[in-house]
Amino acid sequence: MPPDLQASPFLSACRGEAVSRVPAWFMRQAGRSLPEYRELRGSGSILEAIARPEVACEATLQPVRRYGVDAAILFSDIVVPLHAIGFGVDVVPGKGPQIDRTFRSAADLARLRDLEPDDVAHVTETVRLVTKELTGTTTPLIGFAGAPFTVASYLVEGGPTRTFEKVKGLAHAEPALFAALTERLADIAIAFVSAQVAAGASAVQLFDSWAGALSPAEYERFSLPSTRRVMSALADLGVPRILFGLGTGELLDKMATSGADVIGIDWHVPLDVARTRVGGLPVQGNLDPALCVSNVDVALEATRDVLARAGERRGHVFNLGHGVLPSTDPGVLAEVVATVHAEGRAGVEATR
Amino acid sequence: MPPDLQASPFLSACRGEAVSRVPAWFMRQAGRSLPEYRELRGSGSILEAIARPEVACEATLQPVRRYGVDAAILFSDIVVPLHAIGFGVDVVPGKGPQIDRTFRSAADLARLRDLEPDDVAHVTETVRLVTKELTGTTTPLIGFAGAPFTVASYLVEGGPTRTFEKVKGLAHAEPALFAALTERLADIAIAFVSAQVAAGASAVQLFDSWAGALSPAEYERFSLPSTRRVMSALADLGVPRILFGLGTGELLDKMATSGADVIGIDWHVPLDVARTRVGGLPVQGNLDPALCVSNVDVALEATRDVLARAGERRGHVFNLGHGVLPSTDPGVLAEVVATVHAEGRAGVEATR
Repeated sequence: MPPDLQASPFLSACRGEAVSRVPAWFMRQAGRSLPEYRELRGSGSILEAIARPEVACEATLQPVRRYGVDAAILFSDIVVPLHAIGFGVDVVPGKGPQIDRTFRSAADLARLRDLEPDDVAHVTETVRLVTKELTGTTTPLIGFAGAPFTVASYLVEGGPTRTFEKVKGLAHAEPALFAALTERLADIAIAFVSAQVAAGASAVQLFDSWAGALSPAEYERFSLPSTRRVMSALADLGVPRILFGLGTGELLDKMATSGADVIGIDWHVPLDVARTRVGGLPVQGNLDPALCVSNVDVALEATRDVLARAGERRGHVFNLGHGVLPSTDPGVLAEVVATVHAEGRAGVEATR
Repeated sequence: MPPDLQASPFLSACRGEAVSRVPAWFMRQAGRSLPEYRELRGSGSILEAIARPEVACEATLQPVRRYGVDAAILFSDIVVPLHAIGFGVDVVPGKGPQIDRTFRSAADLARLRDLEPDDVAHVTETVRLVTKELTGTTTPLIGFAGAPFTVASYLVEGGPTRTFEKVKGLAHAEPALFAALTERLADIAIAFVSAQVAAGASAVQLFDSWAGALSPAEYERFSLPSTRRVMSALADLGVPRILFGLGTGELLDKMATSGADVIGIDWHVPLDVARTRVGGLPVQGNLDPALCVSNVDVALEATRDVLARAGERRGHVFNLGHGVLPSTDPGVLAEVVATVHAEGRAGVEATR
């Protein structure tokens, strides 16, 4: 770890250590809610922007400057490694990821070749640019990847879904094939995240965004094994591993057995309740992003509720319970960060 | 109650009594998954179809014939009473309810006038036609309405939403106005459901479909009071009152205090777990509709899992955990019903 990051409140909180202040960052903090981001992006596709390291670096750093958050998160997308190995995927504005040829049978496994570092050279170059810019600060860069189940849901459904009928159908009807698919996707995620850490990322988050579509028994069969595979392979990198999913109230106890160091909590489960379910692991969350849209007083009242539920116990990274909504006023998020820094007490050293 | 319905397995299960067989029906059983429904509906709007009692009656009865389910549910929509009082709403194919002028301020309360029985004469005529057709059977008709929070979410957002940012913003920023709104919607739901029961419906379901968008504290503030108002007003009707919402794992204990007689359980929470959360009330659910789409073996395995979790205890109405998906093969649902009837044991009399 770079010496400046020894004092990172974010990394300390992820390790359950005392902190100088409660750290805060926002999922999807680099994005459409920022006017400077909209100007930077223009009308090109997000995959084009990600492919340009100087653009991706700037998008990554904008929220750090704007909000004073305690971590940067790489401007990227969970389908980037699939795109890099030529699986045939695009991210269509307003529609999300779109798969050219959906995953249907064992023959499609051959289309998921290993990810080589050269495939994502643009991403590792972005990581190098960002971490160079952050040198001398206590702000680390978080790398990330999609968890195998969530990525598999796009491959099988062909795009975003509300019903998950195809991916569940495949998983139940052909569990061996689905296990092979998620194992391949785990290896791709491992290679992708390892490259980011080698280039300078100091923490990683695995987005199993759609895990909440699964029942507890399904989660145990169809997501947890490949998630464990990723977490286990990343253990030697020595960086905090965060696992996040939406609607995971029934799954938190199982997620806590994945090997993750920190469990992300959406806003459905109050933070104090969530904490008991993850068996004492550090937690990240859990302000409802919808409450940051319309009214700063509402946002700060909800922020204080999260802080109160976090209490004085160590191991809380403040965050939203899901990504920043595009309609969010950046000024509200800046006030949320200031409030967390001023009033948060979780693990804050008594000498402060 | 009509004498034939004394032997209704559905009504008995709702009361927690012994049954001759485990009753089953499916949310959205009348709908697009049935070819005879698609033929009946043609290309007109759903509100037009609902406005024609002979069409709505036929749509209501089609799944009873096709599946042998133990209850009919009125072919209707939760926005029907709003449409009937002239609030300005349409249901657009592929988009769902669309509100002409969204609810923004106290001035909009005046646009929510009382619902008079004459406003929904087409609905009560449908109820009369259906119950006449069902005379001599043990199959009751379930009437329904939208719960105030869920209906309010459409009025404030203007249509379906994934973020609920406007309705949550209004509820938090102007709680007195939001309480007045949901109280008005409660009174409309009470009038709507009471008219259906007066015309012959033998049970009612309140759809708080989007309750799961709320945290437990929000549910207690923004949905439970108006839900209680509805349940309390319906108590004297003497028919079972079912309360359903999606993604309600964290809310079930609170929903159980609403006055509802039966709690609907989606598929996220295993039925045996859900049962402990609702404190012994009868439950309805909880087969994942996505598992009925692709493969009959998958559907029946999941059906047997629900039956196993229901066990022998009284008070289980078999259902899906959400509505039938349009892509469902009706033949699969027929096999699900047959399996529930043949293998279900919850409350089945030992003399069977």
